Amino acid sequence: MSSSRAVVLVSGGLDSATVLAMARQDGYELHALSFDYGQRHDCELRAAERICRAAGVCSHVVVPLDPRLFEGSALTSPDIAVPRGRSDEAIGSGIPVTYVPARNTIFLAMALGRAESLDAFDLFIGVNAVDYSGYPDCRPEFIDAFERMARLATRAGVSGQAIRIHTPLVSLTKADIIRRGLELGVDYGLTHSCYDPDDDGTSCGECDSCRLRLKGFAEAGAVDPIRYRRPVDHDRTDSH
Amino acid sequence: MSSSRAVVLVSGGLDSATVLAMARQDGYELHALSFDYGQRHDCELRAAERICRAAGVCSHVVVPLDPRLFEGSALTSPDIAVPRGRSDEAIGSGIPVTYVPARNTIFLAMALGRAESLDAFDLFIGVNAVDYSGYPDCRPEFIDAFERMARLATRAGVSGQAIRIHTPLVSLTKADIIRRGLELGVDYGLTHSCYDPDDDGTSCGECDSCRLRLKGFAEAGAVDPIRYRRPVDHDRTDSH
Repeated sequence: MSSSRAVVLVSGGLDSATVLAMARQDGYELHALSFDYGQRHDCELRAAERICRAAGVCSHVVVPLDPRLFEGSALTSPDIAVPRGRSDEAIGSGIPVTYVPARNTIFLAMALGRAESLDAFDLFIGVNAVDYSGYPDCRPEFIDAFERMARLATRAGVSGQAIRIHTPLVSLTKADIIRRGLELGVDYGLTHSCYDPDDDGTSCGECDSCRLRLKGFAEAGAVDPIRYRRPVDHDRTDSH
Repeated sequence: MSSSRAVVLVSGGLDSATVLAMARQDGYELHALSFDYGQRHDCELRAAERICRAAGVCSHVVVPLDPRLFEGSALTSPDIAVPRGRSDEAIGSGIPVTYVPARNTIFLAMALGRAESLDAFDLFIGVNAVDYSGYPDCRPEFIDAFERMARLATRAGVSGQAIRIHTPLVSLTKADIIRRGLELGVDYGLTHSCYDPDDDGTSCGECDSCRLRLKGFAEAGAVDPIRYRRPVDHDRTDSH
């Protein structure tokens, strides 16, 4: 029997690399989807390619998205500064300036179109409601509402075939995610998380994304294999 | 007081031209959004530009969409023939081959992103559940589910601001739409509907879209101002 196809959103970050490994573990034929939307950290896309190659995906489509759709986010606008060195409390409160308008809605809508073209009914996305509770479109109630809408939107849904949005990371801490990924053999050296990297892809170690990542590795009792601008920050967080 | 902004999906067809006129009549500041997804009838996009210019929109963004997302539709695949000369019964039954996977989900998701960037809370889309009941993503229950999802997805929704998806055409016949548009001064000579036009934009008069359009004009007691390949077909339908 041939395996079912799944469309997996792969950003190039730690979370989506783990999701891809989990979908492979579940036996799906993997079809990866990434987006190029003028994000500052385009080394994410190179990371996405490395991750997909290592996971042996059947297809990997990188969809260009018009950055005018996403005006007003620190991730796409050079005029808005990426926050640095914020406390855990500050990171966890309110909607961050790094929020990109309707991003997960757009990503999942695209994944739904790709899935329908492939006769796939399973979508995987690495949203997480623990570490990034500030993003409205990472919450389980958003995912549930999207799934319900997707069933009404599609040819498959009309014929009674359930469309499923899998969010295997939604209630895991960053440390849990890293532990699970390491068990599945994910090479986190291929991934990229920093919002504000050097030109050669070296991570800053101070933006929200780096801090959550470093904290996760520290709590998982593992060493983050990627390169940081200042080893001192890594050591400090790692020694918690 | 400045007027509220609305994001209006403008395909270049008769329906969206009417929706744009209705949103203007309602007093919104108009921000149009169109998509270039390798559709066969790219003269639609030229029509969209003409319509937006005539309506005096504040902005018109044409978003390129990767056609690989939409494989498997007669509108995007040269291998699948556009049906011609079908009966009204055939047109109204089942999901047509011109269905584009998850199209309205993707279009509305993009419109939601654009709306959030503009601090707009009103989206307009010309879906219609009367003449095109074969498309699952034109049904009111799909729109309701999208609206509910959108409120959970966005910064605006989280802060209690309602996102509204306006579908002013949803229960109108094609003839009703045309009558309403003519009252509002829409120049239907600027619009394009044909799925299979000549290179110069002349409409075929035989595809489902042309047939529904010609039937609508006939029932509205009006003459369609656009050019058709064979005047005899127009006359035939017009004389019903």
